Amino acid sequence: MREKFPFFAAHPDLVYLDSAATSQKPQDVLTALQDYYVNANANVHRGLYELAYATTAHYEAVRAQVASFIHAAKPSEIIYTRSTTDGLNLVASSFGPQVVKPGDEILISGAEHHSNFLPWQQLSHRLQAKLVVAPVTATGDTDVEAVAQLITPRTKLLALAQVTNVGGGEVALAPLAQAIHDVGGYLIVDGAQAVAHLSVDVQALDADFYAFSGHKMYGPTGIGVLYGREALLEQMPPIQFGGEMIDEVLDQSATWAEGPLKFEAGTPNIAGVYGLGAAITWLMTQDRAAIAQQERSQVLALRQALAAIPGVVLYGSDASIGIVSFNLTGVHPHDLATFLDEQHIAVRAGHHCAQPLMARLGVPATVRASFGAYNTIADGARLAAAVQEARGFFLGND
Amino acid sequence: MREKFPFFAAHPDLVYLDSAATSQKPQDVLTALQDYYVNANANVHRGLYELAYATTAHYEAVRAQVASFIHAAKPSEIIYTRSTTDGLNLVASSFGPQVVKPGDEILISGAEHHSNFLPWQQLSHRLQAKLVVAPVTATGDTDVEAVAQLITPRTKLLALAQVTNVGGGEVALAPLAQAIHDVGGYLIVDGAQAVAHLSVDVQALDADFYAFSGHKMYGPTGIGVLYGREALLEQMPPIQFGGEMIDEVLDQSATWAEGPLKFEAGTPNIAGVYGLGAAITWLMTQDRAAIAQQERSQVLALRQALAAIPGVVLYGSDASIGIVSFNLTGVHPHDLATFLDEQHIAVRAGHHCAQPLMARLGVPATVRASFGAYNTIADGARLAAAVQEARGFFLGND
Repeated sequence: MREKFPFFAAHPDLVYLDSAATSQKPQDVLTALQDYYVNANANVHRGLYELAYATTAHYEAVRAQVASFIHAAKPSEIIYTRSTTDGLNLVASSFGPQVVKPGDEILISGAEHHSNFLPWQQLSHRLQAKLVVAPVTATGDTDVEAVAQLITPRTKLLALAQVTNVGGGEVALAPLAQAIHDVGGYLIVDGAQAVAHLSVDVQALDADFYAFSGHKMYGPTGIGVLYGREALLEQMPPIQFGGEMIDEVLDQSATWAEGPLKFEAGTPNIAGVYGLGAAITWLMTQDRAAIAQQERSQVLALRQALAAIPGVVLYGSDASIGIVSFNLTGVHPHDLATFLDEQHIAVRAGHHCAQPLMARLGVPATVRASFGAYNTIADGARLAAAVQEARGFFLGND
Repeated sequence: MREKFPFFAAHPDLVYLDSAATSQKPQDVLTALQDYYVNANANVHRGLYELAYATTAHYEAVRAQVASFIHAAKPSEIIYTRSTTDGLNLVASSFGPQVVKPGDEILISGAEHHSNFLPWQQLSHRLQAKLVVAPVTATGDTDVEAVAQLITPRTKLLALAQVTNVGGGEVALAPLAQAIHDVGGYLIVDGAQAVAHLSVDVQALDADFYAFSGHKMYGPTGIGVLYGREALLEQMPPIQFGGEMIDEVLDQSATWAEGPLKFEAGTPNIAGVYGLGAAITWLMTQDRAAIAQQERSQVLALRQALAAIPGVVLYGSDASIGIVSFNLTGVHPHDLATFLDEQHIAVRAGHHCAQPLMARLGVPATVRASFGAYNTIADGARLAAAVQEARGFFLGND
């Protein structure tokens, strides 16, 4: 598998365990980017020459491919964004004010990434609504029962990660979707940590919105996707204005394009769309079940190895999706990450854009190792051995 | 020159005259994109390992390079955006409400692209301000004197393209900057059609904001720049919320990062930044004065050749920057573009995202040929010959 990723040929000794921050890209994705620039570079939805037609056709074909990838009902429910963050902010800015009134509640979990926390916090300020933050489990995952209990008739929006980015727990969304819909509210899902690992079905999840990024699922940077239910997208106003999102522009008024183009003002990241399409094609031609099983085994093996080291505190659970977060008591996670870097092991240490979760866990930061399709059991074993060694280095052998 | 652009090796017979829509990319830019993904792929401002440090350092080094490219006072005045459109919308959404009050005026030209028209039109609706649209010259360029006369003590924002995207005229901005500053207003510049052709100096222009895109200046899609004067950026609120734009996040409140990061929520288009840096390096190592002179000669030669064809109506002027817009009386511009496409000549036909300008010119659309560093006099000559031929085909020879 590693040989399909040129990054590893350039870094043969690196143990890359930071795929939750950004994944490496298979050759197919790099080829698609070059293919765009060399063979197809033209603007979309604008030109009247053959090349521009072909590029526009591909741009729209990838939209259909994305719809199929997450089982959306129609390609017109797929909006190209810059990132997960961009998509979640679009929902907050455009849809939020349509349904949230003063005194209403917006419900999130205390385990959310800032990208799925701050848009709702700031929206609640703006609309004089109440942000309700559900408690988390002792190990930092979303507490589904606590969330369910906090849904009230005033809850208009429920925004949750499908897989959290510190604990790595998969959230059982379908029953929560039922509960929020029963009170007339809407479910917004942050899929950033899910799409690379799970087979996502937005209709089965009954999500009203679902946002994810290309760069965490083997695709390029600067491209993301927002899925929205067609009936909701139709009623939402655009929040950016410019080329190709219009129907007619007069001096003092304008009307907007139908469908997703309404939300795609300006020249989009066309190369990014080509790369995203290639990433999906690559993923769909892999044995995804086997990769998921392999990632589960790697998580489990690493957790077991770390648990055997005195002083290691593990977050998440044995069922975590592609993520193992932990601390070594008495060693600052930043120092630990630096020690690991010297051994050519790339993990992330910090608050993981989840300061409210860190406050709940009572720590300033954690170390996070995260897996992709190219990792092996040996990667986790090297990490565990290095943590053991770090313990001796920082704390002395006992 | 053409041999530096892999696109032309793949399209040896194509006469590409649509660089105002998107330019082709030199090999150096494609190499930079591959270099990022193969050698440097890590997230920025997040990791604590060597690779992530190096990537972050490069990401910030390009910011300094952009500042130097447009002669900004400091790198911290450079915000990475998705596109020109994204940058102009950011100014409208974040800065607009800070300075525009009900009854105030926002002044633009009737020659503006929708991206520099609609954000102000919609902002004026939102703030109960008045959008004032200055008349254009008979050939579709911004009428600088008309703009100057419309500046009043109520004018809070003046938003203009430095080079318009249909006429291609360069707007003398410095005196207008003086005039708008004299009444306490601010100058926002759409630089999309300028940066590839002119040596831009935001301080000499005395612009308060200056927006442009990478993909029209030989760089990648999905990356743009917004320059803003430091004192103004400091007082502006962020409009997107998420990772890396924060200082501290509590459940019910948050504080923001200093500087441009405040406006860069979420994982940015890191590969795009690498490519933008390579495009600037490439541009700065060319003889830009010679390229500009060559583009002027090509514009002039094409205008003269077209002017000799009966029925051709030219827009813009002999001083147009890289753009020749025209119509052939009696032939719809779309039909003409399709005819040209069959001869492997790529031009753009349409309203060029400037419907208010089309209304002023009294046409539904125009044909637009636009030049880049890789074009030659022969490209324009082939176009002119094909237009002559089209005249015979559509209208019969007289």
